[in-house]
Amino acid sequence: MKVHGSPLSTSTQRALACFYEKDIEFHFVNVDMGAGQHKSQNFLSLNPFGQVPAFEEGDLKLFESRAITQYIAQEYTDKGTQLLLSGSKDTMAVLQLWKEVEAHHFNPPSTKLVFELFYKPLFGLATDTAVVEENEAALAKVLDVYEARLAESKYLAGDQFTLADLHHLPNAHYLMGSSAKKLFDSRPHVSAWVADILARPSWFKVLDMQKQ
Amino acid sequence: MKVHGSPLSTSTQRALACFYEKDIEFHFVNVDMGAGQHKSQNFLSLNPFGQVPAFEEGDLKLFESRAITQYIAQEYTDKGTQLLLSGSKDTMAVLQLWKEVEAHHFNPPSTKLVFELFYKPLFGLATDTAVVEENEAALAKVLDVYEARLAESKYLAGDQFTLADLHHLPNAHYLMGSSAKKLFDSRPHVSAWVADILARPSWFKVLDMQKQ
Repeated sequence: MKVHGSPLSTSTQRALACFYEKDIEFHFVNVDMGAGQHKSQNFLSLNPFGQVPAFEEGDLKLFESRAITQYIAQEYTDKGTQLLLSGSKDTMAVLQLWKEVEAHHFNPPSTKLVFELFYKPLFGLATDTAVVEENEAALAKVLDVYEARLAESKYLAGDQFTLADLHHLPNAHYLMGSSAKKLFDSRPHVSAWVADILARPSWFKVLDMQKQ
Repeated sequence: MKVHGSPLSTSTQRALACFYEKDIEFHFVNVDMGAGQHKSQNFLSLNPFGQVPAFEEGDLKLFESRAITQYIAQEYTDKGTQLLLSGSKDTMAVLQLWKEVEAHHFNPPSTKLVFELFYKPLFGLATDTAVVEENEAALAKVLDVYEARLAESKYLAGDQFTLADLHHLPNAHYLMGSSAKKLFDSRPHVSAWVADILARPSWFKVLDMQKQ
């Protein structure tokens, strides 16, 4: 099993957190994005969009971090953390719903904020404060919905940590180290939830990979 | 089974196409968005984001069109069109992959184009040509990947029509009636694919609902 990616990429981190939760051994192939390796012919044969991560297991080639996590969680149910809710059809549908909420509500504004507040300063570029304000306002509305939801259940899909929570880890991590932290801190249930998921050993292992 | 939505909303149309493919009877509750019904307390109890569609079946309440289609396709496998690939774990993973591609690559630029080229003129607003140019360029790159993929298989996930194709219907429909049609027409496999999926009886039934 091979994961091609960069420890600095949030999408790579999302996939890696899943591998660590499932306690699955994999071979990590570092893609040197600074050198443009993700746009090389070789890498484009793994992901035609030229983005990390990409995944290989035998003849199966996948990309898109959330397709990789879904495959791993479903295929290796007996290993590590159970990341999908078993049980009734209703609980599975609710998990799917909150995965969609992450993808279509949390991800767009949080990705723009991470770009403005973390990656731009990292590469010496100026943060666009208008973009920050617009996306902080959008994210605040999303976190209002999360606050109400997390008052009802410890995690988004229910009382168990699932892929619906895991998919938030990379962006939540960078936002908690930025001026957008206030959006989480001001909502007690969101604040407890984000502290809980960022304290998972799997996430520390992902962060450790950045140091290597 | 109740579907709350508006026949003019692309997300509602996505869910409706799935119900028609699966040949499932449902009660449609029209949400008068012009009158702001989707922001009423009653509707917010179905979807806290105040967006259509919303779905109810017994105690199960769902929103997010793609969570609804996944639930229906999975729960009612024995009815109507088979929208999920059965068979090997690999084929299911590839279906999931192309669903993610629709959500994260096709949907963002196509949604912005539908807003600029269809909804804005409908409501007497001026189209922003800079936004159109930017998103046509982004969509062209996505359709280059689709063209290569559809040269290998008739549909995105393989030789069978699945949710990965169905999720494209609403935006593809509006774009084919706009200046962005050229992006599809200039790519032979994409052009054949979009003609094929837009000719499905389920899609005509969705369009018929707009006339009522």
